[in-house]
Amino acid sequence: MGVAAILPVTKPDPGQRTAPDALSALVEMLQADLEATNRTIVARMDSPVALIPQLAAHIVAAGGKRLRPLLTLAAARLCGYEAAEARHVKLAACVEFIHTATLLHDDVVDESLLRRGLASANAVFGNKASVLVGDFLFARAFQLMVEDGSLRVLDILCRASATIAEGEVLQLVIQNDLDAGEAKYLEVIRGKTAALFEAACHVGAVVAARPEAEERGLAEYGLNLGIAFQLVDDALDYAADQATLGKTVGDDFREGKITLPVLRAWAAGDAAERAFWQRTVGELEQTDADLAEAMRLMERHGAIAATLVRAREFAAEAKRALAVFPASPMRALLMDVADYTVSRAR
Amino acid sequence: MGVAAILPVTKPDPGQRTAPDALSALVEMLQADLEATNRTIVARMDSPVALIPQLAAHIVAAGGKRLRPLLTLAAARLCGYEAAEARHVKLAACVEFIHTATLLHDDVVDESLLRRGLASANAVFGNKASVLVGDFLFARAFQLMVEDGSLRVLDILCRASATIAEGEVLQLVIQNDLDAGEAKYLEVIRGKTAALFEAACHVGAVVAARPEAEERGLAEYGLNLGIAFQLVDDALDYAADQATLGKTVGDDFREGKITLPVLRAWAAGDAAERAFWQRTVGELEQTDADLAEAMRLMERHGAIAATLVRAREFAAEAKRALAVFPASPMRALLMDVADYTVSRAR
Repeated sequence: MGVAAILPVTKPDPGQRTAPDALSALVEMLQADLEATNRTIVARMDSPVALIPQLAAHIVAAGGKRLRPLLTLAAARLCGYEAAEARHVKLAACVEFIHTATLLHDDVVDESLLRRGLASANAVFGNKASVLVGDFLFARAFQLMVEDGSLRVLDILCRASATIAEGEVLQLVIQNDLDAGEAKYLEVIRGKTAALFEAACHVGAVVAARPEAEERGLAEYGLNLGIAFQLVDDALDYAADQATLGKTVGDDFREGKITLPVLRAWAAGDAAERAFWQRTVGELEQTDADLAEAMRLMERHGAIAATLVRAREFAAEAKRALAVFPASPMRALLMDVADYTVSRAR
Repeated sequence: MGVAAILPVTKPDPGQRTAPDALSALVEMLQADLEATNRTIVARMDSPVALIPQLAAHIVAAGGKRLRPLLTLAAARLCGYEAAEARHVKLAACVEFIHTATLLHDDVVDESLLRRGLASANAVFGNKASVLVGDFLFARAFQLMVEDGSLRVLDILCRASATIAEGEVLQLVIQNDLDAGEAKYLEVIRGKTAALFEAACHVGAVVAARPEAEERGLAEYGLNLGIAFQLVDDALDYAADQATLGKTVGDDFREGKITLPVLRAWAAGDAAERAFWQRTVGELEQTDADLAEAMRLMERHGAIAATLVRAREFAAEAKRALAVFPASPMRALLMDVADYTVSRAR
C-alpha cells in the first residue's frame, strides 16, 4: 500500500503546482547553481587515494535528490544573494558532504540493504572504508568552510554536526525501547535529520548578510521541514512499496528502530499486541510474517495516518516561518517544498 | 622479547635524563597546562546524551599518554606563549578529541582486542556507538576551534583531519598487498599518525604568533616524530610483550596490515618464506603457530632492527628541526621526547 492511499494531501487546484512537482521546479529555478554545486562536489571529493572518490561517488554522485544543498541555494537566493563569488555554492557542497558522511556512517550502523535504490556503499566496500571515507568527507566539508572564511558559518555547521551525532547516539540508546516516548523520538529526529536541514537553510541566509529575523525564519523553516521529512520517512518504512521508495520496506522494523508509527501502535495496543511489539521490536525476535502483522496493527490503530498528521503539522510550521519574507516565486516554491515532503510517495 | 633487547638506544650518560623519563619530565614541566587540558576535555565531551561522555571517557579518560596534546602545550611554551587566555589548552583538548575520534573509528576498523590495556570501546559498546561518538568528538573538536576563532588553526587541523582519513584509507587499500612498497607504507603512516603530530606542534606555534621559520620547525619536528613513533609501534607489534605495550602482539599480523617489518622480511625472503607471507598476510590464512614463525623470519632478516634504524633516522630529523630555536629546557625536553619515542618499550 503506497502512502498516497492514506495521505489526502494534494487536491490539485487548477493552475497550482502539485506538490511533487515542487522539487522539480526548485531544481529548475536553481539549475545553474545546482550544476555549479555538483561541479564543486566532484572536484572537491577528489584525492590521490583513488578509493575515496570511487566510494564517495557511489553515494554522492548516485543522484540523490540533493534536497539539503538545494535548501542552501534556495535560502541564499530567497535572501537576494547574488554575489559573483557564489559562496552559497561552496556551502551547498559542504552541506552535501556532511550529509554523505552521515549516510556512509549510517550504512555501517544500519546495515541497510538498499539506499537510493542501490546497494549501500557498505555492502560493496565494507564497513572500514565507509567509516574512513565518511571521515574524509566530513574533514573536507570543514576545509571548504575554512576556505569560505566565515566563523559564523563554521559555528552553525559545527554545531549541527555535533547535534547530528547526538541524535544518532540517542537513537541507538532508545533502540528496542518501546517506552522511550514521543518526546525522545522527536529529539532523535531533530538531531539526526532536522539539524542539517536547519543549518543548510541558515547558512544560506548568513552568506546573504540578512537581518537576524530572516536568518531565524529560514532556520526555523529548515528545522520544521526536516522533522516533517523524517516523520514521513518513518511512515514510508511501513507503507511504501520498495520501487517507489528506493529502499527496503521494514528496515526500521527489522532493526527495532523506535519510530512514531511503532510508538503509536504500541500505545494503542492491547495486551496481545504489546506482547507482539515487545517480542519483535523490543527483543528483535522476528519471523517472516511479522512485518505484515506489524503493518496490519498500524493500520488498525491509524498509526501511519497519525504520523502523517504530525508531519503535516510540522510542514505547516515550516511554511509559517517564511512569513517574515515578502511574497516571491522562491518563497512560494519553498512553501511547495514543504507540501512535497508530506506527499512524496505516490 | 622486548624491543629494548634489540634497541641499543639509550647509553645513559651520567647526569643526562634517560629517554623514557623524557615524557614524565614533559608532563611535570607542563603539569598545570595538562591539568587545565584534562579539565577542558572532561567539560567539553559532555552531552545530554549520557552514552557519549560514558563511551568517550572509556578512551579519553582511560589515561592515555596524552602525547599529542602535550606536544601542543610544549610547542606553545617553547615559543614563549604565556597569554592568560590559554588558547593552547583549548587547542590541546581539540587535538586529543581528534585523536580519540580516530581511535574510536579505528576500533571499528581494527577489531583490536586491547587498546591501552583495556577492552576496546568497540568490544564493550559495539561498532555503532564507536562510530557515532567518534563523530561527536570530531564535531566537538571543530566547535572548540571555532570558539578559539583562528582560521589558520582551523585550516591546519581540518587539513590534518583530511590527511589522516586519506592515510587510513590508503592503509586499507594496501592491506594484504605485500608488493605495496615502502614508499606507500610511509605515505600511510605520514597520514594516519604523523599528520596529527605535525598539526599538534604547528598550532602551538601559531597561537604564539611566531615567525614562519619557527612554525615550520615545529611542524617538521612533529611530522618526523610522528613517523618515528609509528615505525616503533609497528616494530613493537612483532616484538613487545603484551603487558608492556598494553595491546596484543600480532594484531597487525592477524589483520594482514602492511608494515615495514613485514615489507623488509618479505623483500629479504626466499621462495618458501615468500609463500609463507603470501599465505598469512596476503591471504590471511593463518594458524596459531604462524605469528611465532613470522617473528622468527623477521629476526633472521633483521627486519625489526631495520625498522628501528629508520625510526631513529626520523627521530634525528625531528631533533634537527628544532635547531631554529635557541637552547632552552623545553627544547632539550622535546629532543629527549624524540629519543623516548624510539626507546619506549622496555
